[in-house]
Amino acid sequence: MTPGTIHGVGLGPGSQDLMSVRADRLIRGATHVAYFRKKGRRGHARSIVEGLLAPDAIEIPLEYPVTTEIPFDDPLYNELLAAFYENSVAQLREIAEAGCDAVVLCEGDPFFYGSFMHLYTRLQGRVPVEVVPGITGMSAAWTATGQPVTWGDDIMTVLMGTLPEATLVEHIARTDALVVMKIGRNLAKLQRALAEAGREQEAWLIEYAAMPQQRIRPFREVGDSVPYFSIVVIHGNGRRP
Amino acid sequence: MTPGTIHGVGLGPGSQDLMSVRADRLIRGATHVAYFRKKGRRGHARSIVEGLLAPDAIEIPLEYPVTTEIPFDDPLYNELLAAFYENSVAQLREIAEAGCDAVVLCEGDPFFYGSFMHLYTRLQGRVPVEVVPGITGMSAAWTATGQPVTWGDDIMTVLMGTLPEATLVEHIARTDALVVMKIGRNLAKLQRALAEAGREQEAWLIEYAAMPQQRIRPFREVGDSVPYFSIVVIHGNGRRP
Ligand SMILES: C[S@@+](CC[C@H](N)C(=O)[O-])C[C@H]1O[C@@H](n2cnc3c(N)ncnc32)[C@H](O)[C@@H]1O
Ligand SMILES: C[S@@+](CC[C@H](N)C(=O)[O-])C[C@H]1O[C@@H](n2cnc3c(N)ncnc32)[C@H](O)[C@@H]1O
Repeated sequence: MTPGTIHGVGLGPGSQDLMSVRADRLIRGATHVAYFRKKGRRGHARSIVEGLLAPDAIEIPLEYPVTTEIPFDDPLYNELLAAFYENSVAQLREIAEAGCDAVVLCEGDPFFYGSFMHLYTRLQGRVPVEVVPGITGMSAAWTATGQPVTWGDDIMTVLMGTLPEATLVEHIARTDALVVMKIGRNLAKLQRALAEAGREQEAWLIEYAAMPQQRIRPFREVGDSVPYFSIVVIHGNGRRP
Repeated sequence: MTPGTIHGVGLGPGSQDLMSVRADRLIRGATHVAYFRKKGRRGHARSIVEGLLAPDAIEIPLEYPVTTEIPFDDPLYNELLAAFYENSVAQLREIAEAGCDAVVLCEGDPFFYGSFMHLYTRLQGRVPVEVVPGITGMSAAWTATGQPVTWGDDIMTVLMGTLPEATLVEHIARTDALVVMKIGRNLAKLQRALAEAGREQEAWLIEYAAMPQQRIRPFREVGDSVPYFSIVVIHGNGRRP
């Protein structure tokens, strides 16, 4: 029997019509649709495709075993996650080995800081896997600011809020355009790092880019918490005729 | 009369089905379609939408006045380009002020090193302008390599081949994941910079990502020229459970 293919499909930043034509076609035609979610939640990726799935599509929610109960650097955290990914992969392999295709819904672009990568590397070489790129959250974020992000030969750096403060400062000071993702509980650290690099006044915070709750503010007006879907952008200032 | 809207529409990396659903809808419904091209050429953006335009759509090719005849740093180069942008904007304003919408075709994502930005800043505040983000060329490039580009809290840096060699070396040495665009005539400089930063062996060259001529090679196997649509990628190596 020919095995089916697992498609890791980029959904883009959150608005249904910012999905690619290829993603739209794969999702509407899918017999098996898998997606990550937290226990007890609907799942953000799943909610983006609301109304698109075939009525008889089989859904495979992949539920994260840990959220915030176990600290990030506890070895148990890694063990639990690894077991979860193995188990998710087993479910997807079973589908593919029975000759069916499956779609895995991925926020943004799957290969850009996405969770699908953990399934991808475990599926590779075992069953056919294909990836459909998507519009990233950061593209939607800078588009929302109404200002181009990079000009001429501007340097652009993408940082995660989870990095150490000194690393953040060093890279923020040396780049033209900046994107910071995974801010959440790292907000205070990021505020200090931007100030220390002397760039707090240039920064914008974009929440829920391309989603109904989209909100754009100068970063200096941000209080002491931001939602998970938040991105900091500093625009480059390069050559322009 | 209500003025029309100028839509800067991201086409994505080159494959028609990697356009967003929103872009696809705007382009199929457009009465006026503008795009940049070199004199005497078809225009790459125009060729991406082949077969999608309405039969009676009015096309507005915007033809670059200079290509390689005048050096980049000659003030005349800037003057000619600025006049060209002013003239393009005048054509688009006329359409909008007559109450019609127009679509401007943009490769990749319009606000990410795109030419549309030069029209955008000149149209802003004069007629309504909207931007549709797109899948970037770099997303298609790393997807083509079949390897995720960033994990955990990897740092990603985007550089242009037009930067000075010392700047390239400095940033290549300090990043986890790397993207280099606008390589063309800067290939030899980039080869030296990657070697000097000690990262030549990790780099991949992707030509024509998501286009029929797509080609992926280890960077060390590249000879002495690459096409305009070429991107260098170094994959990050961050935390993964
Ligand atoms: C695990 S990463 C996934 C990135 C995704 N693969 C992409 O291509 O955008 C999650 C982070 O992406 C950012 N993000 C993704 N989409 C977003 C959106 N639409 N609005 C704001 N932030 C977003 C947030 O910073 C969030 O913490
Ligand atoms: C003026 S920039 C435009 C970037 C575009 N706005 C984007 O979002 O990808 C042109 C450079 O983008 C890169 N590029 C864009 N699309 C590409 C593709 N499909 N394949 C390879 N390179 C591409 C090349 O390095 C090229 O020199």
